[in-house]
Formats: sequence, C-alpha cells, structure tokens
Amino acid sequence: MTAEIITIGDEILIGQIIDTNSAWLASELDKIGVSIIKIISISDKSEAIFNALENSGADLILLTGGLGPTADDITKPVLAEFFETRLVHNKTAFENMQNFVLQRGMKLNKGNKEQALLPENCTVIPNKYGTATAMMFQKAGKRFISMPGVPFEMKNIFTEEILPIIKENYTLDTVIHKNIPVFGVPESVLAERLVDFEKMMPENLNLAYLPSPERVLLRLSIAGNDKNLLNSIIKEKNKELKNILGNDIFASENIFLEELVGKKLKKAGQTVSTAESCTGGNIAKLITSISGSSEYFEGGVVAYSNRIKNEILGVKELTLMDFGAVSKETVEEMAVGIMKLYGSDYGIAVSGIAGPGGASPGKPVGTVWIAVASKNKLISEKYSFGNLRDVTVRRASATALNMLRKILSHKTSRRP
Amino acid sequence: MTAEIITIGDEILIGQIIDTNSAWLASELDKIGVSIIKIISISDKSEAIFNALENSGADLILLTGGLGPTADDITKPVLAEFFETRLVHNKTAFENMQNFVLQRGMKLNKGNKEQALLPENCTVIPNKYGTATAMMFQKAGKRFISMPGVPFEMKNIFTEEILPIIKENYTLDTVIHKNIPVFGVPESVLAERLVDFEKMMPENLNLAYLPSPERVLLRLSIAGNDKNLLNSIIKEKNKELKNILGNDIFASENIFLEELVGKKLKKAGQTVSTAESCTGGNIAKLITSISGSSEYFEGGVVAYSNRIKNEILGVKELTLMDFGAVSKETVEEMAVGIMKLYGSDYGIAVSGIAGPGGASPGKPVGTVWIAVASKNKLISEKYSFGNLRDVTVRRASATALNMLRKILSHKTSRRP
Repeated sequence: MTAEIITIGDEILIGQIIDTNSAWLASELDKIGVSIIKIISISDKSEAIFNALENSGADLILLTGGLGPTADDITKPVLAEFFETRLVHNKTAFENMQNFVLQRGMKLNKGNKEQALLPENCTVIPNKYGTATAMMFQKAGKRFISMPGVPFEMKNIFTEEILPIIKENYTLDTVIHKNIPVFGVPESVLAERLVDFEKMMPENLNLAYLPSPERVLLRLSIAGNDKNLLNSIIKEKNKELKNILGNDIFASENIFLEELVGKKLKKAGQTVSTAESCTGGNIAKLITSISGSSEYFEGGVVAYSNRIKNEILGVKELTLMDFGAVSKETVEEMAVGIMKLYGSDYGIAVSGIAGPGGASPGKPVGTVWIAVASKNKLISEKYSFGNLRDVTVRRASATALNMLRKILSHKTSRRP
Repeated sequence: MTAEIITIGDEILIGQIIDTNSAWLASELDKIGVSIIKIISISDKSEAIFNALENSGADLILLTGGLGPTADDITKPVLAEFFETRLVHNKTAFENMQNFVLQRGMKLNKGNKEQALLPENCTVIPNKYGTATAMMFQKAGKRFISMPGVPFEMKNIFTEEILPIIKENYTLDTVIHKNIPVFGVPESVLAERLVDFEKMMPENLNLAYLPSPERVLLRLSIAGNDKNLLNSIIKEKNKELKNILGNDIFASENIFLEELVGKKLKKAGQTVSTAESCTGGNIAKLITSISGSSEYFEGGVVAYSNRIKNEILGVKELTLMDFGAVSKETVEEMAVGIMKLYGSDYGIAVSGIAGPGGASPGKPVGTVWIAVASKNKLISEKYSFGNLRDVTVRRASATALNMLRKILSHKTSRRP
C-alpha cells in the first residue's frame, strides 16, 4: 500500500514556514508500514491543487491545508470540482463547529458558517480542535483525505480519526518498531560503537538514528508477516544494543528524560525542585510538560541575576565574588539552596553562559555548570555546549535531567 | 519566472528528517522574486527521479541530494539518462575534489573517484565544501541544477555560484514583503475584519495568514518592476491594516511578544518577574530566549503547589481556601507577591488548569487566570484555552506577555 502527502499553501513555497506536518505524517505512516512515495507542496491556487489531485499515483492521498475561513483557503471548491459535486451546508460539520465554538464561549461568525459548506459526497471526519472539518473521498480505487493544516489540529485528527480508518481499510505488512532512547553520546560516537552491530543486521531490519539536543532516539524496525518471528528478532537485537550501550540507554520506550525521572520520582514518593540561571525556566517547563507532575514537582526558581541567586537561593556573596556565577561552588549552593527553600528531596541547579554575550577568559560561550543535590549527596559537572543559545539551553536542560536520573537509579538499585 | 525544487532521498519520505533545505531554498528564491510553484520530495529510485524530471513544469528546476559516494546515491546516472548522455570522468570536477581533500589532509578514496564521473553534457558548478559536484543542464527551454543534499554544502554553493547564475540569466521582478504580527484575535475573526481590505487589494498584492498559538503573522507581499511604486503601495496598505487592527498589531517587524516586551522594558529601564503555576516556567523560558534579557529580567518563581504559592509568593492561605488556586484573587496576590519578592517593576502571574486532570465544577480544563501587577496598577483576566495541555501553556504564556505589553504601552503613551 502506498501513500502520498500533498501540502497546500503558499507559506511553504515562499519558505516562510518549514513543512513539519509532512515529516510528522510520514513518520506516523512509516510506523504502520505504509510506504510514502511522494511528498509535495503546492500553491493555494485552484489549478495547482487540481493538478496535484489528478497526478497522484498512490492508494491513499493525504492533503493538509487550505481549509481555513479566509479567502486564500480554496481547497474545498477544488475538491468539489475534482469529485464532480457541489458545496452544500453540512449539518454534522456545522454542529461540530458549534460545539467547539460554544465550549470556548465564543460565537460562530460568517467565516465559520462558510466553513460548514462541504462537498456533497464527502465523508465528514470531525475536528474537535478547530473549526475546519476533515473530509474523506473515494475515486478510481484511491482514497483522498483532506485535513486542516494547523499542526496540532491535524495531528490530533490523524491520530484519533484517520489512523483507525487506514488500519481498517488496508491490509498492511506487520511492522514492529523498538524505540531506544539514548542520552549523553554524540551521534557520531554512537554510530562508531554500532558499526559491528549494523554489519550483522538481518536484511529486513533497519536501524534509524533520530538525533536532537534532548536525546538520540534509536529505532529498530522490521517488516514482514510472521509476527512471532519479527518479535523475536527485535527482542534479540534490542538485547544486543543494551549490551553495547548499557546505561546510556535511559528507557525501554519512546520517552524523554523528563518523563523517565518523573516516573522514578513518583515511584519513590519523592520530589524535586529546580534552580535555573541560563536555562531560564526550561527545566521546570520540561518537568511540568508531563501531566501529573504536580505529584513530584512543587516548583522552582529562575535566578537569572546574581542578586536573586544570593537573596532567594542563599548563594553566598563571597562565593559569587570569588568563583563567579558560572562555577562549581555557585551551582552547588544553588542546588542545596533550592532543595532547602522548597523542602524537596532533590535540587537541580544550572548556571552557564548561553551566549552570545557573557563570555569571560576561561569561560567561553557554552560553558555550563550543573549540580544535583539530595539529602546525602551532591554532584556537579562542567560542560561545553557550543555557540548556539537555543541548543545550549536545550542540551543543558536534558543533561541536568540525566544527572538526576543517574542519582535516582543509583539510589533505587541499592539494597539495604 | 518559475522554479521547482526536487528533494531526493528516503530519509524525508519516512519522516526521519525534516526537509529544511527546501524551505531555505524557497525563502532565498522568494527574496529575489522567483516564484516557486512546487516543492517535491521523492525516493532515491531511478524511476521516481526520472518521472520528477519529466513532469517538471517550471523554468528552473533545482534538485538536491543523491550525489554522495554510497550505493543509494543514484542521481547522476538518472540525469545522464534524462539528458541522453553518458557518465564520463570530468577533469574539472576531479581537480576540485582533489583540492578539497588535500586541504583537509585526507586522501581520495574509491567512492570519491567515482564521484568525478559526471554526465558528459553538464556544466560543472564547483563545490568548495565537499566532494559532490553540482551540475547544470538545459533542455527544452528549462534549466536544471543538481546540488548535494548536505545543508551547509548546498547553501554555500547556492549562494556563491547558483544565485549569480540565476540573476544573470533571468529578468526578475522586484518583491517586497511586510510582516505584521497580531495577537489576541482568532484567525477567523481577523479574516472577517479584513474582508473589505482583501476585496480592495490590488491584484499583485498578496496577504498571507500564518497562525500559531503565539501570534498570527500577517504578511503583505507585492511583486512588480517599479520599486518605488511597490514600496508606496505596501506602505499605504500597511497603514490601512493598522487603521483596521489598531493595537492588535503588536509590532512593525517579524518578532514575537517576548522580544517586543523585552525592547519596551529595556527602553524604559524597567524589570519584570514571573510567578507561574500552570505554565510551569514557560514564560520565563520565553523571556530568557532573548539574548540580553538579563537587563530586564532577574528571574521568576514556578509555584506549582499551593504550599509554594503561600510560602514563597505570600498568597494568603485564606485566599487559596476560599477562592482556590485558579482564581482572580490568587493570581493577583501571586503577581504582587513576585513583584515584591524580586523587587521588579512588573509582576506577571498565571494559574490555570492545563489538564487533562484538575478540572472542577465551573472550572473546566483550559481555564486560566492571568494577572499583571505594577506599582500602581493591577489587572487580571480569565481565559479558556481548550483541551490540549501544550497549547494551553503556549497560549497562556503569550497572553500573559500581551497583557504586559498593553500595560507597558499604556504607560509610555501617557504624557506628563
């Protein structure tokens, strides 16, 4: 079974936004064994959309964009033309839209009402996250699905509504994936450590590297029809990877460090708090991105200035004067300070130079000190994260969470 | 003049990497007035590449990828087939390659030597940044340029070699853009308010909407050959938009709210601090994403639990008991509390239910209270941001910054 993705909108063609929707859709389709043969971005002009529909050569064609309430959203009339029908008021779509708008205490406007005009022969796919309705059509043995282009609307509709439709209507190879998140090893070093492993892989097994500042996600994939056999191969290869990479693998599922440490803290009935300088609140933000984090996180302090480090966190003036804000001594006092102030079991502290300004002799941009404190332990480490402000913040945040993970693992693995 | 971009490689089709090359190329071409009609990603299979070449309908076709030394790099043989020629050893390309390799103290390997085999009728475009040679072809009035897919190689070759070729060979329109960021108005309402404006637009003027939880970016674009005329139209239309949208336009350039309030605070020599519950540090993170923010931001407190709201921020126990953590009374005390604790000129506070848990009668998921305090002013507002945790955090953060902007604007517009 093959699929094609068509993205509609001038924003991509003029390079104003990057087409992340297609990458996300491609990765979701790949996971269930659908082979994508083409991803195409076209202008929001009738002729371009019509041509793309006519020239599509896959079993399933997914369209995103052009369903908004503005004048340049013209996907619907083109769909009506292509499927030889007309636009009519669709009651189901209108009611969905009304519910959505009412829930936010807003009113339907004229533009919204026009959004309820849909091609007469479409199958409505409800959108709980916005006013643009998704639609399905069939023609010449192909299935066409049109979705809104707003990423969070598209992603939710795809996961909740469209994925089940695909699984129901197509016979797909069994595809098994195993996600293995790794932290603390650069991608090139990882590749080097896995050279022999890759040489010995069976032909239908694939190993993908998905690097980001927060982790490298390794993904083993295998396709075939004997599910038990596929499972046993994946299991064996996963075990081999564990032997090679050891503790650099931080979880056995597709999660980030904030979720992993959250689980560990919850299990242990313990809490953590954060004292952030150069990461500016990003660690707290990561921790609280996990629903239920209030069970182990009561909060933190962003101490951007030395005055706040001293007055709120209790870092000694002398420490700041003698060693500077970016030093082992300062982060250690910050970690202990936040732990005491918030009465938590662990304290995380970060202080560094995110850049572009702030460098000093011996402390170039990218220098970051991180400390983790518990009642009976205090560790700290110095890192160099490079020249990019955003990347330094992201890498420092993940590294701090990884240091907490190591302390937590150590604790729970001890036997009385 | 029209262009088309073709990206070759399976990594994009399986969603493993996002196609940032195309976005970059599109934006560079758009700047010089080249109109991109299609961006397409295809597999590294001969048939897919050949078809894409055959079906290209633009004056200029830019290809990236598939020029490396490995077995899956098959762009060159397909180009030879399409342009009805054969691969021959190219002396110029080989010497360029030798120079590149020598400069790094490396040696040419067998794979590299094969990279010097090029279609006989191509025009060589030298690559100073790698071993893959870029090439130009002409056929049926169209120009085809094939570039390596490694982003920094492609970008440098494009800027240094290909851009001059385009400017020399095509007569291009002048293109002028004006970015207008708007906050606080849903896209559909915005469209309604701009119906008449859009009706009266000259034909060569385009208005694009780029919505996100943080803002809607409006972009006026105009193309033509009389630069002064274009500039005066853009100026006039921008003025009209300002009359219609007034204070909902928050800046006259392509920036986000955190940068705007940063500029205003810096100019006024004032500081702000943040007290965050449901946004969990995201506002502090946004503020500190701006380099130089330490001049107006000393820090903030993440107060996820009631205990911290009370003990650190000084919210009265009685307030929390009588009105709850998500209430006008609580956020107002939080805003005043953080302002006093950090000694800042302004205090921002947010408390809400990001979900999925935490709802109570009358306070559904998505309910958020936001307050902004200054020495002589205290404002607060209740919002409903919907069901998605991440979107609620992002919208609440931007809304809080927008409330701060309004207080700041009010202040600076006052005359003594």
